[in-house]
Amino acid sequence: MKIVALFLFVCSGAFSQNPVRAWRTQHEEQILSEYLKLLAIPNVAADRTDLQKNADTLMEMLNTRHVAAQLLTMPNVPPIVFGEIKTPAAKRTIVLYAHYDGQPVTPADWDGGDPFKPVFREVNGERRIYARSASDDKAAIFAQLMALDALQASHIPLKANIKFVWEGEEEAGSPHLEEMLNGHRDLIHGDVFLICDGPVDQSRQQTIAFGARGDTHLEITVYGPKRELHSGHYGNWAPNPALMLVQLLARMKDENGHVLIPHFYDSVKPLSETEKRALQEAPVNDAKLMEELWLGHVEGGGKHLLELLNLPTLNINGISSGRTGARANNVIPATAIADLDLRLVVGVDWRGQQQKVIDYVKAQGYTVVESEPNQETLLKNAKVAYVKRDSGYNAVRTSMDLPISEDVIQAVESAHKPVIKLPTMGGSVPLEGIERATGTHTITIPIANHDNNQHSANENIRVQNLWDGIETMAALLEMR
Amino acid sequence: MKIVALFLFVCSGAFSQNPVRAWRTQHEEQILSEYLKLLAIPNVAADRTDLQKNADTLMEMLNTRHVAAQLLTMPNVPPIVFGEIKTPAAKRTIVLYAHYDGQPVTPADWDGGDPFKPVFREVNGERRIYARSASDDKAAIFAQLMALDALQASHIPLKANIKFVWEGEEEAGSPHLEEMLNGHRDLIHGDVFLICDGPVDQSRQQTIAFGARGDTHLEITVYGPKRELHSGHYGNWAPNPALMLVQLLARMKDENGHVLIPHFYDSVKPLSETEKRALQEAPVNDAKLMEELWLGHVEGGGKHLLELLNLPTLNINGISSGRTGARANNVIPATAIADLDLRLVVGVDWRGQQQKVIDYVKAQGYTVVESEPNQETLLKNAKVAYVKRDSGYNAVRTSMDLPISEDVIQAVESAHKPVIKLPTMGGSVPLEGIERATGTHTITIPIANHDNNQHSANENIRVQNLWDGIETMAALLEMR
Repeated sequence: MKIVALFLFVCSGAFSQNPVRAWRTQHEEQILSEYLKLLAIPNVAADRTDLQKNADTLMEMLNTRHVAAQLLTMPNVPPIVFGEIKTPAAKRTIVLYAHYDGQPVTPADWDGGDPFKPVFREVNGERRIYARSASDDKAAIFAQLMALDALQASHIPLKANIKFVWEGEEEAGSPHLEEMLNGHRDLIHGDVFLICDGPVDQSRQQTIAFGARGDTHLEITVYGPKRELHSGHYGNWAPNPALMLVQLLARMKDENGHVLIPHFYDSVKPLSETEKRALQEAPVNDAKLMEELWLGHVEGGGKHLLELLNLPTLNINGISSGRTGARANNVIPATAIADLDLRLVVGVDWRGQQQKVIDYVKAQGYTVVESEPNQETLLKNAKVAYVKRDSGYNAVRTSMDLPISEDVIQAVESAHKPVIKLPTMGGSVPLEGIERATGTHTITIPIANHDNNQHSANENIRVQNLWDGIETMAALLEMR
Repeated sequence: MKIVALFLFVCSGAFSQNPVRAWRTQHEEQILSEYLKLLAIPNVAADRTDLQKNADTLMEMLNTRHVAAQLLTMPNVPPIVFGEIKTPAAKRTIVLYAHYDGQPVTPADWDGGDPFKPVFREVNGERRIYARSASDDKAAIFAQLMALDALQASHIPLKANIKFVWEGEEEAGSPHLEEMLNGHRDLIHGDVFLICDGPVDQSRQQTIAFGARGDTHLEITVYGPKRELHSGHYGNWAPNPALMLVQLLARMKDENGHVLIPHFYDSVKPLSETEKRALQEAPVNDAKLMEELWLGHVEGGGKHLLELLNLPTLNINGISSGRTGARANNVIPATAIADLDLRLVVGVDWRGQQQKVIDYVKAQGYTVVESEPNQETLLKNAKVAYVKRDSGYNAVRTSMDLPISEDVIQAVESAHKPVIKLPTMGGSVPLEGIERATGTHTITIPIANHDNNQHSANENIRVQNLWDGIETMAALLEMR
């Protein structure tokens, strides 16, 4: 009985210090149960009806909280959920961005088999919720809503105008975001556009990222025989596209992960003194991470992970040709496919980066085509590569020395200390289009745990990150 | 009416010249309908019950034809269907081998979606039957049975003893065939072991192969992070196993398909003068094949396909890491897998050939393990490759100058002219174990069309190849 009394005392002590935390500790089960309902709505980018259901639910959640809400729509594009709180005599408008769509799923790869049946699991004695978008990025949306509840319940008044911009097309590369924001410039205008997405540092400390890498993709298909052939009857005569592909990809990078494609690192903008200092102050988690990830070596030629995030990347997201494992057959496959991910940093243009890769493919003796090659094309050319260019966007980096940057740092530090300040986060958010359309700066405030399996099977959020995230969001909502 | 009469006249003309062909033309629909029933029994190597059903059906088909039949069994191994016809005063025993099991199937890749619902389709005005094993290798078994029917119906007496040995484990690499034959040496003994498997030459001419390449496999898995990682947050720091794999595989062969692994071609036994002459007499179909297969270039540095079949190969049957196409995600995959097929020729040992590849992997800086590596192994070593060695068997080449070789050539030439004589066929049959267990020579008599999609989706047999095959089998059954 004494222990329980002490525990209650500690809780109420927290109450007097931090009303947001106090409200949360009193409502945990109710908060989690509401979150599970949100996660149970499938949100795979390809399914428009599901995305609409998510948007409708978020509209309802805003309406319940008396936030003026509307859907910003465009034909054949998932809507933006827009919410607005006008504060009398406010001098600033804070815009909070997040996204409600999720990455594709392969249910068979998920423990439990259903990415949209959220489940709790204990990991190292800590509770986590497993579901697609549990971290990326419904966590941010939900933390904002809970922060609102906490502030309202604690009668803490807002000082600035608040706007919510929740996108439904981020995992597809946000191809229409800029156009949609542009079409509603007056509505979405603010003094800063806070991107609430991504994971915090691997040390689990609250992180602010003043930029994000840009992103684009290329899908490369190379061709062997028109149909799969018996590997005995045609082996060492019919060209094997899997071999062609591995030879094409192998020389794109050296053993240290340094990209060998000509001009790949040209025009990268160097870091400022403040940015370099912030990086030096950030913890180095590399050794711990290597152990956590069972890595016997890392790329980068001795540079730390946080430094490397300020360089462009070329990453093989996937390769496939023929079959492996139990489904392997004795064949010469007909095609081989690679999906390449290009991350960009400030100074490097996504179209230019795609072109460098394509020029490299050509320099390897390939005829590059931009549609499925026909018999004539394949017969006429020794080696043919069909390259599909995805859309993309460039990187953005907001100066840490701006007054709004300093105010955001101060707000976040009022909730958590220390705060890690990164010039660039490794992941990508379409900041470029946002800045162009809104005319404001972007700053990124992630809340998810780094080990969240984002973009993969078994995506999850550490419940403590959700709790911390609610406090972070409340601090931002409270900004002057 | 006159045209019909003329047609009947031509048919009956054929009858007087070749009773087997005449019998077939009179029974085509009945023959095909019986074949479809056989093809409708699933025969994927992994399903033991299905394989047993095939064996039971074949037993019944032999019994119906008054052939003394039995199943040669071994625990947990698909049975061999053994049939025997004793001919009074016979001086020779001819053994006809074929196999009733089929390659794995991926139904979604098949037009029609079911590899075990045989369907007729017209290709370039010719009828084909589509089903798994339509060519490989139920065609041979069925042609032998039909040849028996034709000879019996035409009252043509057999001159030699005949034995049928139909295996159920060939597509799994025949791991128990030698042991099973060994256990029944007296039963299966004969003067020649005729392997009725594989496709005829691309010119569609009847082919005899005096050997077959050996075969074995290696599955190589290389490791990146323990779990898939977000390609933005960890890209150019966490090693990408897809990149590691492509770099490992790329240097195994040059651009001409020449294997660069040290000693790969050492100890290949050169061709004899008769073998070289036979190769020179064989048609060169390369240009036609390139057009048929939409190939803009071929490997081999200028050598013809039929010559290249006399060299060992290294073929990538499949590679996979992450995902491609609509299922691609922005990840650094956790593993990358390659399935390698090694074809062997006489003089090259399968275990030695595996070892050369493994030594090469080690020389590339990999620690090679033979079971799934644990955390300790992965942390301790920069690069780890888990190599699964499959079982295998060596190549065999029977001299074309032996009396039995000359008699087989003469028999086949009595049904078809010209006959193409190859020292080695490209595909693999477990001839080595057969020769060891039986003490006899093997000669391979294929009947399937080359463009049969063997081992792939939409496997098929050209009906004319089935007709020709019945005549070939009848000629062998009639041998003295």
